[in-house]
Amino acid sequence: MAEKHRVLILGGGFGGLYAAQALRGEPVDVTILDRRNFHLFQPLLYQVATGSLSPGEVAAPLRSVLRKQKNTRVLLGEAVDIDPGSKRVLLKDGGTIDYDSLIVATGSQSAYFGHDEWREWAPSLKSVEEATQIRHKILLAFEVAERTADPAERTAWLTFVIVGGGATGVELAGALGEIANETLKHDFRSIRPQDARIIVVDGGQRPLASYPEDLSHKAERSLLKLGARVRTGVMVTCVDGNGVTLKTHSGTAHIASHTVIWAAGVAASDFGRRLATRTNAETDKTGRITVSEELTIPNHPEIFVVGDLALRLDGQGKALPGVAQVAMQGGAYAAKAIVKRIGGNRHVKPFRYFNKGDIAVIGRAAAVADIFGLHLSGLLAWLVWVFIHLMYIVEFQSRIVVFVQWAFLYLTFNRGARLITGSAATDAVARAEPLTNHAEA
Amino acid sequence: MAEKHRVLILGGGFGGLYAAQALRGEPVDVTILDRRNFHLFQPLLYQVATGSLSPGEVAAPLRSVLRKQKNTRVLLGEAVDIDPGSKRVLLKDGGTIDYDSLIVATGSQSAYFGHDEWREWAPSLKSVEEATQIRHKILLAFEVAERTADPAERTAWLTFVIVGGGATGVELAGALGEIANETLKHDFRSIRPQDARIIVVDGGQRPLASYPEDLSHKAERSLLKLGARVRTGVMVTCVDGNGVTLKTHSGTAHIASHTVIWAAGVAASDFGRRLATRTNAETDKTGRITVSEELTIPNHPEIFVVGDLALRLDGQGKALPGVAQVAMQGGAYAAKAIVKRIGGNRHVKPFRYFNKGDIAVIGRAAAVADIFGLHLSGLLAWLVWVFIHLMYIVEFQSRIVVFVQWAFLYLTFNRGARLITGSAATDAVARAEPLTNHAEA
Repeated sequence: MAEKHRVLILGGGFGGLYAAQALRGEPVDVTILDRRNFHLFQPLLYQVATGSLSPGEVAAPLRSVLRKQKNTRVLLGEAVDIDPGSKRVLLKDGGTIDYDSLIVATGSQSAYFGHDEWREWAPSLKSVEEATQIRHKILLAFEVAERTADPAERTAWLTFVIVGGGATGVELAGALGEIANETLKHDFRSIRPQDARIIVVDGGQRPLASYPEDLSHKAERSLLKLGARVRTGVMVTCVDGNGVTLKTHSGTAHIASHTVIWAAGVAASDFGRRLATRTNAETDKTGRITVSEELTIPNHPEIFVVGDLALRLDGQGKALPGVAQVAMQGGAYAAKAIVKRIGGNRHVKPFRYFNKGDIAVIGRAAAVADIFGLHLSGLLAWLVWVFIHLMYIVEFQSRIVVFVQWAFLYLTFNRGARLITGSAATDAVARAEPLTNHAEA
Repeated sequence: MAEKHRVLILGGGFGGLYAAQALRGEPVDVTILDRRNFHLFQPLLYQVATGSLSPGEVAAPLRSVLRKQKNTRVLLGEAVDIDPGSKRVLLKDGGTIDYDSLIVATGSQSAYFGHDEWREWAPSLKSVEEATQIRHKILLAFEVAERTADPAERTAWLTFVIVGGGATGVELAGALGEIANETLKHDFRSIRPQDARIIVVDGGQRPLASYPEDLSHKAERSLLKLGARVRTGVMVTCVDGNGVTLKTHSGTAHIASHTVIWAAGVAASDFGRRLATRTNAETDKTGRITVSEELTIPNHPEIFVVGDLALRLDGQGKALPGVAQVAMQGGAYAAKAIVKRIGGNRHVKPFRYFNKGDIAVIGRAAAVADIFGLHLSGLLAWLVWVFIHLMYIVEFQSRIVVFVQWAFLYLTFNRGARLITGSAATDAVARAEPLTNHAEA
């Protein structure tokens, strides 16, 4: 038996998973490597951070998704280096994997504009762990506020700052608004959760800058109804335990807050940077690798880069955005290109991104969508959002569970996954004033 | 307005929550204190550890459950000491809470027969964090086995030891058996998950010792079908990273295993021990406090102790078991006794435990139940188990979600919540041999 063509896929996100699935039944040996044992449905991660969904409901074990693909092996591990000459990837544990074709889909990580020290105070929404951490921070802020007598401190605990007014920032702000105005409405005795201030700060001119202007304004109005304000045209100059300092048109401003969430910059994965160095590939300032129209690295037609790590311009000279559908289409394209080449087809058609539309949800029955130039908002956009997201969740079981959770959220505003775990809980509350019910004594 | 009678409830488990709910609408001021912001449905925690359910699906935020009770305040905090003379509880953060009546429902914690160093190697099933840790350990063991070439090491990774053959141990073993034989059947390429060895070790004569003998045997047979063996009459003398050492009738034995789960001893909560010291209450060797027939501490009729922390004998002189229904009934009894006393009723009827039956599930359509002397097993017992557990889950929303998850588990054996999070994943795999696909080179 002739040895089969070996395809190595790095990363089990949208790019990697869709590549692997497109190789089902093809005459190749597929290995998919990820640091995690699960595929994460990243677009719903903010719902984990805001307590509507549990991590297990937005993730699917890679082994389980790919179990029926006999030509595919799932491995848990981390790629740290590559030797493109001998076509070999080096793993963190010292192991190596040889490939004939490589699909790199290692994605992006959050970046703090060169201020990594901000990370401690402002977690971002990249992993399940961070989403859980954000959930703890949000819920604890209300708990501590309930126990804080000092008005200024109480206000700081009830102030939530989201850095970044893109889709993630807007969706987070909307969910936070619902938590404060609906979910927790009756839960406290000393504070009114409705008094919470939610502030989205952004350096640009409007939120959802990649959307048409009318939808930005609609999103902003929907947010305002939920008590969330957008401050545009401001630069974050400092983040620490006391809040956020901003540079505004007129000077500087400080927002006192103990809960800052990062929804701003991203940068290429560490492996992506290493790959660029080893192959002398061109990168932009965030580390994205410029790829050919076949999504390969110049001089390395056997190395495909797909998803957030790839820098590819569309017809208008604009870079394709780092969203799920670009990664999915890129992964599937790379897989098909490999199969065609094995079949002796030297020339494959260039990759063309087909934008099915953009959509962001703000709250119950409130969303904005731009689908083939059609601008939708309100209930209709929200229903489209629900439908699309349920359809793309990988496992049917999760689809049903997420649907049930959303149905309840719609009907009752209750968010089931409001656990605070880890030692953080009582430690954080202990930072508030000691509790007493005999202040008169 | 006369000041209302202040009831302080320590602990939001079954005892504390049912006490709080029984005080709904009564003319008292209720404060319920817990280290966590959620009530945990402990009987289903093993399903979190074995990946069928997510933590958020077996927990309900205390605030949310009690939001409609205007006389009740939920506080996040930890009681560390008590001054029974001035009727005051001291919190970890230095705060204090005064009470007129106190209901202590702080439960139990796992105990390692005086060998706390075993805890590192054998997590127990007491908290959400431990359940998640056990889930990671189980899933990682299969991942590492897949990458281990040495047969002895591979066997050790595929050997799972559960210490304790009570309901928790048996239910864990059953779930593990299903994972190995069904859930993961097609997921690996180098190992056969069905080769996993699952061993329950117990010092007694039979598993489920508190059940009638015929049900113990039925449970043992059901476990055997799932590849899980019960070794009775053995004492654990050592637990470490290499496995478990046992003292048997004929000498000693060693089971090489990297995954040991503790489902054996429990001991009183730390606050319980402190309470016993401060009130000179009598305790047994595990720290449980001997309570009067009104569930109070002798000489302190205002202090009730309910649930796992209380030592109360039934009609036959046997201690009431540390199970949910004893705690529920104890909590509700204490609440009603307090209300009656406020109403001027000096003498309340003694607490009487009404045993609705015992039931343990082993696998799909396999359970054993002893209900009013009626011995059930198989599908019927399992259906009763499903019904009872769904009914007692506190939030309706969770009930539906858990039902959906179970329905899928029944139909497909798929377990959705199979995430390995934290840095454990790649670190643990790195302990296996370095990976390579060019062994011939």
